[in-house]
Amino acid sequence: MAQDSRGNPVTGMPETPSSGFEVRSLGHCAFDSPVPVRHFVDESRRVLANPEVGPGGIPPSAPTLEAAGPRRRLFFDPAATRAAIVTCGGLCPGLNDVVRAVTMVLWHRYGVREVLGIRYGYAGMVPGTAHPPLQLTPERVEDIHQNGGTILGSSRGPQKEEAMLEFLAAHRVDILFTIGGDGTLRGALALEQEAARRGRTLSVIGIPKTIDNDISWTDRTFGFETAVEMSRLPIRGAHMEAKGVDNGIGLVKLMGRESGFVAACASLASSDVNLVLVPEVPFSAARILAWLEGRLERKAHAVIVVAEGAGQDMVAAAGRDASGNANLGDIGPHLRDLISRHFRGDRPKASVKYIDPSYTIRSAPANADDSVFCFELAERAVHAGMAGRSGMLVSHLNGRYVHVPIAMAVAARKKIDPAGSLWQSVLNNTGQPAELV
Amino acid sequence: MAQDSRGNPVTGMPETPSSGFEVRSLGHCAFDSPVPVRHFVDESRRVLANPEVGPGGIPPSAPTLEAAGPRRRLFFDPAATRAAIVTCGGLCPGLNDVVRAVTMVLWHRYGVREVLGIRYGYAGMVPGTAHPPLQLTPERVEDIHQNGGTILGSSRGPQKEEAMLEFLAAHRVDILFTIGGDGTLRGALALEQEAARRGRTLSVIGIPKTIDNDISWTDRTFGFETAVEMSRLPIRGAHMEAKGVDNGIGLVKLMGRESGFVAACASLASSDVNLVLVPEVPFSAARILAWLEGRLERKAHAVIVVAEGAGQDMVAAAGRDASGNANLGDIGPHLRDLISRHFRGDRPKASVKYIDPSYTIRSAPANADDSVFCFELAERAVHAGMAGRSGMLVSHLNGRYVHVPIAMAVAARKKIDPAGSLWQSVLNNTGQPAELV
Amino acid sequence: MAQDSRGNPVTGMPETPSSGFEVRSLGHCAFDSPVPVRHFVDESRRVLANPEVGPGGIPPSAPTLEAAGPRRRLFFDPAATRAAIVTCGGLCPGLNDVVRAVTMVLWHRYGVREVLGIRYGYAGMVPGTAHPPLQLTPERVEDIHQNGGTILGSSRGPQKEEAMLEFLAAHRVDILFTIGGDGTLRGALALEQEAARRGRTLSVIGIPKTIDNDISWTDRTFGFETAVEMSRLPIRGAHMEAKGVDNGIGLVKLMGRESGFVAACASLASSDVNLVLVPEVPFSAARILAWLEGRLERKAHAVIVVAEGAGQDMVAAAGRDASGNANLGDIGPHLRDLISRHFRGDRPKASVKYIDPSYTIRSAPANADDSVFCFELAERAVHAGMAGRSGMLVSHLNGRYVHVPIAMAVAARKKIDPAGSLWQSVLNNTGQPAELV
Amino acid sequence: MAQDSRGNPVTGMPETPSSGFEVRSLGHCAFDSPVPVRHFVDESRRVLANPEVGPGGIPPSAPTLEAAGPRRRLFFDPAATRAAIVTCGGLCPGLNDVVRAVTMVLWHRYGVREVLGIRYGYAGMVPGTAHPPLQLTPERVEDIHQNGGTILGSSRGPQKEEAMLEFLAAHRVDILFTIGGDGTLRGALALEQEAARRGRTLSVIGIPKTIDNDISWTDRTFGFETAVEMSRLPIRGAHMEAKGVDNGIGLVKLMGRESGFVAACASLASSDVNLVLVPEVPFSAARILAWLEGRLERKAHAVIVVAEGAGQDMVAAAGRDASGNANLGDIGPHLRDLISRHFRGDRPKASVKYIDPSYTIRSAPANADDSVFCFELAERAVHAGMAGRSGMLVSHLNGRYVHVPIAMAVAARKKIDPAGSLWQSVLNNTGQPAELV
Repeated sequence: MAQDSRGNPVTGMPETPSSGFEVRSLGHCAFDSPVPVRHFVDESRRVLANPEVGPGGIPPSAPTLEAAGPRRRLFFDPAATRAAIVTCGGLCPGLNDVVRAVTMVLWHRYGVREVLGIRYGYAGMVPGTAHPPLQLTPERVEDIHQNGGTILGSSRGPQKEEAMLEFLAAHRVDILFTIGGDGTLRGALALEQEAARRGRTLSVIGIPKTIDNDISWTDRTFGFETAVEMSRLPIRGAHMEAKGVDNGIGLVKLMGRESGFVAACASLASSDVNLVLVPEVPFSAARILAWLEGRLERKAHAVIVVAEGAGQDMVAAAGRDASGNANLGDIGPHLRDLISRHFRGDRPKASVKYIDPSYTIRSAPANADDSVFCFELAERAVHAGMAGRSGMLVSHLNGRYVHVPIAMAVAARKKIDPAGSLWQSVLNNTGQPAELV
Repeated sequence: MAQDSRGNPVTGMPETPSSGFEVRSLGHCAFDSPVPVRHFVDESRRVLANPEVGPGGIPPSAPTLEAAGPRRRLFFDPAATRAAIVTCGGLCPGLNDVVRAVTMVLWHRYGVREVLGIRYGYAGMVPGTAHPPLQLTPERVEDIHQNGGTILGSSRGPQKEEAMLEFLAAHRVDILFTIGGDGTLRGALALEQEAARRGRTLSVIGIPKTIDNDISWTDRTFGFETAVEMSRLPIRGAHMEAKGVDNGIGLVKLMGRESGFVAACASLASSDVNLVLVPEVPFSAARILAWLEGRLERKAHAVIVVAEGAGQDMVAAAGRDASGNANLGDIGPHLRDLISRHFRGDRPKASVKYIDPSYTIRSAPANADDSVFCFELAERAVHAGMAGRSGMLVSHLNGRYVHVPIAMAVAARKKIDPAGSLWQSVLNNTGQPAELV
Repeated sequence: MAQDSRGNPVTGMPETPSSGFEVRSLGHCAFDSPVPVRHFVDESRRVLANPEVGPGGIPPSAPTLEAAGPRRRLFFDPAATRAAIVTCGGLCPGLNDVVRAVTMVLWHRYGVREVLGIRYGYAGMVPGTAHPPLQLTPERVEDIHQNGGTILGSSRGPQKEEAMLEFLAAHRVDILFTIGGDGTLRGALALEQEAARRGRTLSVIGIPKTIDNDISWTDRTFGFETAVEMSRLPIRGAHMEAKGVDNGIGLVKLMGRESGFVAACASLASSDVNLVLVPEVPFSAARILAWLEGRLERKAHAVIVVAEGAGQDMVAAAGRDASGNANLGDIGPHLRDLISRHFRGDRPKASVKYIDPSYTIRSAPANADDSVFCFELAERAVHAGMAGRSGMLVSHLNGRYVHVPIAMAVAARKKIDPAGSLWQSVLNNTGQPAELV
Repeated sequence: MAQDSRGNPVTGMPETPSSGFEVRSLGHCAFDSPVPVRHFVDESRRVLANPEVGPGGIPPSAPTLEAAGPRRRLFFDPAATRAAIVTCGGLCPGLNDVVRAVTMVLWHRYGVREVLGIRYGYAGMVPGTAHPPLQLTPERVEDIHQNGGTILGSSRGPQKEEAMLEFLAAHRVDILFTIGGDGTLRGALALEQEAARRGRTLSVIGIPKTIDNDISWTDRTFGFETAVEMSRLPIRGAHMEAKGVDNGIGLVKLMGRESGFVAACASLASSDVNLVLVPEVPFSAARILAWLEGRLERKAHAVIVVAEGAGQDMVAAAGRDASGNANLGDIGPHLRDLISRHFRGDRPKASVKYIDPSYTIRSAPANADDSVFCFELAERAVHAGMAGRSGMLVSHLNGRYVHVPIAMAVAARKKIDPAGSLWQSVLNNTGQPAELV
């Protein structure tokens, strides 16, 4: 069975990448790399999708993925290549690191001199946009990784493939680096397919961006570790607020629309949390309140972390946002009010302090490890684009960088397995009950 | 006219401390300090309440305050003295620094061996409390300043003076160090007066705690600078979120019930803020929205900081909390919704990201300067208590530490003067209009 | 060929783990786990040592490692088990996280009630030590992960196996968790072998600790990412100092006795570095100075990061420290003086600012990702010990946690491959020449 | 007697500013401020140099200083004014804040459109400099305060007044803002006097920059609090290193050539330090070693902070640097070696870990309070310059901003009084002996 980066089986993911998922290659042109380098990756090198071995050994048909890295032969002639970068969806730590590194590696390693920075997501990639693209140069991007956010700006939602292709043609773009989540990658795939249909030579390379770390076939996504790091401060605050009064309860809502990785890992990182609620593990109000009564009786304080997508059966919501994500009900205030109402009257009075640090986390600059990761991802994205790959994203899987077909990555979302090792670690760390309904 | 620490005249404060405000002295007993020290402050040393000089010079009747610091003669015999410390109201950075330093200075400098830590505010200072006081020792408090919060716990609201005196008598407490805000200090004053009425020898020493920095006759209060420091992260986040989309608006609510010092100084510290709203400067929805329209037209993004007590005429609220503070309407979500509703339909669409970092800031450990300040405040509080002062608080005023009668400190709240230099600095820094109605 | 966590081939490591390397198992006793859990790892589950696939596919004889994780059957009866933890060698971020988590998981998951904390490394594990072990409990270790350092204390150097076994017998220790580097692990192996020779039932489980990240068969070691994170501040400082004067040169010495991973990754994380010097890549003074002349001419400033073990041919040193590591000459001041002497007289004057942040980095608390990693490592170390494994260490390899025989881990040191992808990333990031001699 | 910001008498400072010290005024021209503002400071407003009152009250002749702030009448016509900014000496947190704020206030408040940024200190202010000045605009300086260092660059040492005047004349500079320490201010004074002698209309306004906080007649200097803040990390590291081994000793060298304010306040801020050594308090090797023996015997670890200028009688040095400062011997390694040599052989072995964080601290960006302070200083420097003041610096004294004649500020250095309250706080905090010789 497929596994996530922390060694636990991942549910909801296809057992094996079917043969339908392939990275498209535009072929090889006659140009060798103009830059002398020592390190290349053979075209034939692949990585097992799952390095685990059961009693039966590794079957010959075990699925593999193409290894990422610099190729000896390029598809595009660097001197004539024009690239564009677009950032889509909500903010995520590391966006500027990726924009910077893609630009730098195109410029210094390959000698590409035309790098466009699309403004405000796909909305800036249509004819007649009010915001024409920026011309990116090493001087322009040199220091941008010091800041969170994205210097390009972003937006939610798709644009028509025809319009985007028209824009790309008008700007003579050969390679499009698209940085975004599930919806953005689907848009990139549609664009790539439309280009192929029209016989237009266009490389579309995705760099997956999801602070929730919920894209399949990648161990981690950039910004995720920074988000975990940045979550420690509000959790520590909730802990202090909880212990600061008699029967204090600290409640922190963290990112995680469909997958609770941020909540789970932030709780492991803090070791101050007593209850973690994630979308993958159902819970009932009655069980939470009963647990809280016992906890306050024993310890007189409690810290709860809830992922934003947890408990959606409790909170009414409808419709979808511009990115096509289902709108979520706001579980944070719901829990706060539920708990506050419960602990009054006859019961011991409790005081709930609620913290929603979302935007402070999303807008932070990348931590060191994410900065390294962003640089290495961006390098390989550039290598893939220059070598003529398309319809793929770069991913770190099983300790290796690989090419993953976009269609394979968006086929199912990565989630925590409640019977896997990550969730068991959470149970071991918090001491919370395994059953919450 | 009286001035705050940043050089601007302070309104709503009595021009001069009237002669009715005096620090009570319990007198001097026969014991000299058992500890050899080099530095003492003369009993006659005082500090001008206002060091500014106009054309007429300093009038002979210019009010002065008693200088704080160690006295050559003590009132209490250290070997027989029992002290207690209580922390009240909401969390504030530095509480543990003060608890630690009061304990350490009592123990090491004076040789006092009985220091009680009252649990959960005044609620823990009544007979029959469920939470008996902790015995504080150097070993117990050694590392507590590394953490935010208060190891003693806190609570809101007063207790009956009779009950508190009974508790103090039962525990034979000679000196009570009470750490809290306006309401707490009023309670301390009532307690001190009741003790005096009963002829009970009790020193009540206040250490003012208000993250809003809104107590009169003190340049600053501990935790305030940490709050300003901690406000930079969410403001930076709001800035990045605002610039990250077309017509993005970042909105941050900061502390400041009646005085906007945190909002004003955090904005000066960040230099990323375009509009600061504080309780002292009235504003209308129409003017704010009109200003925003212009700002978005010119710059396509905006950052707004609002103090929690600003614009209370717009938001309905009633009643008072347990501390006796008027309940506030929640201006943050009100502004967020007001702006979101305005920028849709015919108008250019804008996206508002709202951040409320309150508990993360309040629960933080003290920054370095606040840690130094807490140590120096606590030292002088101990000196005052051992010398037999009572009914006073320790304060830093005009670059000196002084004794301020509690009655004088709570007579009026310190506020920003909209015609003073601090607000002028905000106008210079943000470029916002001077008139907002 | 074997690869490190960043996808580059690792030199100096055996191509395949020979069959001589096995994790010793003490067998299974009759006791099932008393704790209900959902997640177990099958005894037969293994992980490929190298998940990469060349044209020939995966050979049937491809080496594998035992998967780590909780077993259904234990060797030790938790109610009767006594464990001990020892920390050895220099400080490393995360030591307290590991000590805490081993204690917590033993106590809460398995019900072990006897956990000894050995004082000051192996020196505290001999009969008659001046520092008897601490009794570790959840209450004792609850908050220790907030701090760097180790509450147990550490020391360098081995002790006689006989003496250690005598000590362990006197304290009736069943499982010894030993946290340390290369030398410590060799000592643990000797101890384990001596115990086996004597027929003494003793589980020795290693948790590799090397801030240099230079132990084989593990993607990363705890503390390494924190070290990279903490290196950003001095590198940023060096950058500012370099740009702050005409022809300024910032020089930072980082950890890395035989392997330059910290220097390499910190440079990637900062993107402010112009030249990285590591032990794996030889360099000559003449080439460095010539490069500097060009750099100053072009840019008027330069930032250099040097690993402590780089350029040892230039600096005289002799002997070994108590841990058995060869003493290093101090390359930092040597380079500083070399450069300072060069740029004076006829040449343009340059100003070198030298920063050695070593102890500030080693003594820091773990960052969030390292805290998660430490918890997960400690869990699996406890699982391995309780299941009766011995002579092994827990490792994270290819995205999975595995058991690695100590003998295999210490057979060769992990190093940067100058022809691999990590070093190529450094070249791409810094723009430095590939050849430095 | 004069007092520093922490309430303790300051030695080595003239008791009263003699009448010879006057701020020069260039007079008033006919132009009123073009900018509507609400807050002005009366020309007659002054601030007592010392607000303390002894038994005799305030004598009529008590010295006062001119209050800083915006004047109703200007000397320079903003539309025609050209200003220049120069940064001199070593790096200090806040330099970019000051450069930014001076530019912003000149531009937005007064409408000045010509602001030159001199490159590399006084060296960039001579005819024929290789580095012509930058043209500073709001866009250019907008984000520079996010970074430490100085975008202008700096250098040490004076230049000939004639050459500097020639340069200023060639660039038609009316107001020169000079940011630097003692030597820089002396240079500024000489320049101002030479300009006056020649009848050249030139306003020279100093903004004192000393990370040591050792300039007289100012409570604090910018960057000082950041330095104290940044010193906590290495002190914490030293503490952890010291406790991490048996008889561990952490030794940290901090800034402080002639005055130990950074060392003293950083120790108060950390409360982890056991011995503070500063230039103002002599000590002997024998006493330090004897104290250490006792400390290790009692506690098995020790943390020592030494200011760089302490114990200069022990370390040989000669000559002066380019700034005219006496070269210091390096007390840090001297103490390290002295202690290491002492604790070996017959004595218990001790392990010394030495940390010198100097450049990491100097190059840091300003903390929040320093950023506010820098903005407020810069505002008042601009007000003073536009109002035609010259030969003065802006200072924060007794909680007020004032104008201090440069000659008065450089007449004596501010030092810690070993019999004052700050040093007494250090003794109370560390428990160290009062006598060290």
